[in-house]
Amino acid sequence: MRAEIITIGDELLIGQVIDTNSAFMAEELNKIGIELYQITSVHDDAAHISQAMIEAMSRAEIIITTGGLGPTKDDITKHVLCELFKGKLVPDKHVETHVRELYKDRPEVLNRLTETQWLVPDNCTILPNRIGSAPIMYWKNSHHIFCLPGVPKEMEVGMKEQVLPILKQMHGEKITHRTIMVSGIPESKLAIALEDWENALPKNIHLAYLPKLHTIRLRLSGYGVDEKTVEEEVHKLINLVHPWLVTTEDKPLEVLIGEKLKAAGKTIASAESCTGGKIAMRLNKFAGSSAFYKGSVVAYSNEVKENVLKVSKEYLNQYGAVSEQVVAQMVCGVKQALQTDYAIATSGIAGPDGGTPEKPVGTVWIALATPKKVNTLCLHLRGDRETITDTATNLALVKFLQLISV
Amino acid sequence: MRAEIITIGDELLIGQVIDTNSAFMAEELNKIGIELYQITSVHDDAAHISQAMIEAMSRAEIIITTGGLGPTKDDITKHVLCELFKGKLVPDKHVETHVRELYKDRPEVLNRLTETQWLVPDNCTILPNRIGSAPIMYWKNSHHIFCLPGVPKEMEVGMKEQVLPILKQMHGEKITHRTIMVSGIPESKLAIALEDWENALPKNIHLAYLPKLHTIRLRLSGYGVDEKTVEEEVHKLINLVHPWLVTTEDKPLEVLIGEKLKAAGKTIASAESCTGGKIAMRLNKFAGSSAFYKGSVVAYSNEVKENVLKVSKEYLNQYGAVSEQVVAQMVCGVKQALQTDYAIATSGIAGPDGGTPEKPVGTVWIALATPKKVNTLCLHLRGDRETITDTATNLALVKFLQLISV
Repeated sequence: MRAEIITIGDELLIGQVIDTNSAFMAEELNKIGIELYQITSVHDDAAHISQAMIEAMSRAEIIITTGGLGPTKDDITKHVLCELFKGKLVPDKHVETHVRELYKDRPEVLNRLTETQWLVPDNCTILPNRIGSAPIMYWKNSHHIFCLPGVPKEMEVGMKEQVLPILKQMHGEKITHRTIMVSGIPESKLAIALEDWENALPKNIHLAYLPKLHTIRLRLSGYGVDEKTVEEEVHKLINLVHPWLVTTEDKPLEVLIGEKLKAAGKTIASAESCTGGKIAMRLNKFAGSSAFYKGSVVAYSNEVKENVLKVSKEYLNQYGAVSEQVVAQMVCGVKQALQTDYAIATSGIAGPDGGTPEKPVGTVWIALATPKKVNTLCLHLRGDRETITDTATNLALVKFLQLISV
Repeated sequence: MRAEIITIGDELLIGQVIDTNSAFMAEELNKIGIELYQITSVHDDAAHISQAMIEAMSRAEIIITTGGLGPTKDDITKHVLCELFKGKLVPDKHVETHVRELYKDRPEVLNRLTETQWLVPDNCTILPNRIGSAPIMYWKNSHHIFCLPGVPKEMEVGMKEQVLPILKQMHGEKITHRTIMVSGIPESKLAIALEDWENALPKNIHLAYLPKLHTIRLRLSGYGVDEKTVEEEVHKLINLVHPWLVTTEDKPLEVLIGEKLKAAGKTIASAESCTGGKIAMRLNKFAGSSAFYKGSVVAYSNEVKENVLKVSKEYLNQYGAVSEQVVAQMVCGVKQALQTDYAIATSGIAGPDGGTPEKPVGTVWIALATPKKVNTLCLHLRGDRETITDTATNLALVKFLQLISV
């Protein structure tokens, strides 16, 4: 089965908003084995929306739209599709109750405009939007057409709780995914290492390479295969990639680190120069991180490295801030100052300026401290300032997870 | 004149990559007064690319594609468009010299595949890709068709240095933009406050509202108007929005803060609880930030607040970590520990858990320290964990910029 996405909103076409919804929906459709053929972004304009819908229906059986469901004048998706499919708008008691409940602490929001939210087309199924006021619409005619809100969180919840269960059931075939992560090998070399095994995979098991910031997630998808068969292939895959394996679980690095530290009752901190707080942000990204993450020192200036992290002035002068000696002192300093069991430190040259022939832009030292020892490594990264610091952050977390996993 | 964007790549349709290129190009086109009608994302598939191109050409005069210009088997944009426009591929000496120069330190990259980069269609103009190996192609036939690489940095440089100058010249009409930023007033109220003035604007001067994380950029665009006329309207606008004005310059908040601090030879640090390093990241986002930004303490746990920032245990017990008293001590503590002139501190409840009736999720205290005094304010934000911390970060920078601007 084939799907298309239509994202609706002038804000997309003047570059005010980056369309993150499409990538989320695309990934979810891909996981359940539905091919996404095209993504089209159109204006809040009746003729444009209708035209895009008719064209999409000529190419795919499933159409998902996002956006244009709000209560203001420029939100016209509901009206356009209602007319296109020859329905009329009628009040819906369930939606009214839900919207009134949603705004019970903010009566000022309930006005003439908001009340239009419980007018819905009489020829579609209304699916609940648990966290927002715009109901999700589902037309089941010659096609399957779903209209989701454009607010990313509402789209995500609607997709997960309403749309995907319907699509999975329609799709019938059971799909099993298993994702593992490797790092430290270029994609092209990995492809060669896996070639024989991949060619010998059963026809209904597919491998996908998902590279990001010097890690590669390898996803095995079994279509209508029992889980045991997929698991056997995962087992073979793990043996083949063993030297580069980061994790056999499909969770973000910071979640895996958090789970391990929480289970052991241990804590972590970071001391960051070039990554400038990005490791901190990753470590406290998810709720509940205060159970293992105590804090960080972003030591951008040498003064802060000396005064807060107790890095020696001699080392700074002799080896420079971007050196194994200094990053090792930084990691010990932050572990001491914040009284944690583990710590991560970084010091590097993010660019675009500041590189030298000996330490070009992209040189990043990383130190990892456990209760017993300090490990250091040096990265040589390419790219702009953002790519270098994002990659250094990601690899620091990879190396740390590997260190506490052995 | 109307434009369309076609983004090419399977990675977009399986959700592996978020299409950030379109938003960048959309904003740039919008700035020079070219209407972007539609964005279409298609597969690395010859029939699909041709079909999308033909459809786009039926709706717009300018088509810009990104992606599919790399040297591997699935990169087919060049071949498909060359054939569609009845050209043939021929070697190009300039491109060859450029590619050889680009890889001179990495001879291992120059192989049979890379060498295809200097084969170009004989019926288009080749525009240089200064930072990458895939040349930019420009077909000037009944339409203006530009093919840019999909690598965001290469697309940006190609767009700015090659495509936009050509489009500006074609467009003819001089466009003047002036953008100012306000904060502290909802968009709907602002629209009412500006209604009379906006209705009285000359026909060829337009106002755009660009809201983001509780700030609103107001952009005045004059089409074929002299700068003085636009400037007069900016002046009237500034008077109308004076109580909420953040800046009259169109630069990121962190750049404006950096410029002011650098000019005064002053330094800044941050102490962050709920924002978890996001203020640090903003302050060191751009090259050259070490001239004014010394570092940060992410004090996630109360222990770190006490030990590193010298927050009193009594205050933590009596008022709680999310309180005016504690955030004021945090800002003084970091200013002292990192020996800076200015500091910003945050403490709040980012959620989804941890809220109480007195301090619900979204309660964030901010403290701003100058050499002479400490200001505090309390925010009551809505949204998920990420929205709350991003908004708190943005508003802390807004308030700090306002404080040092008076």
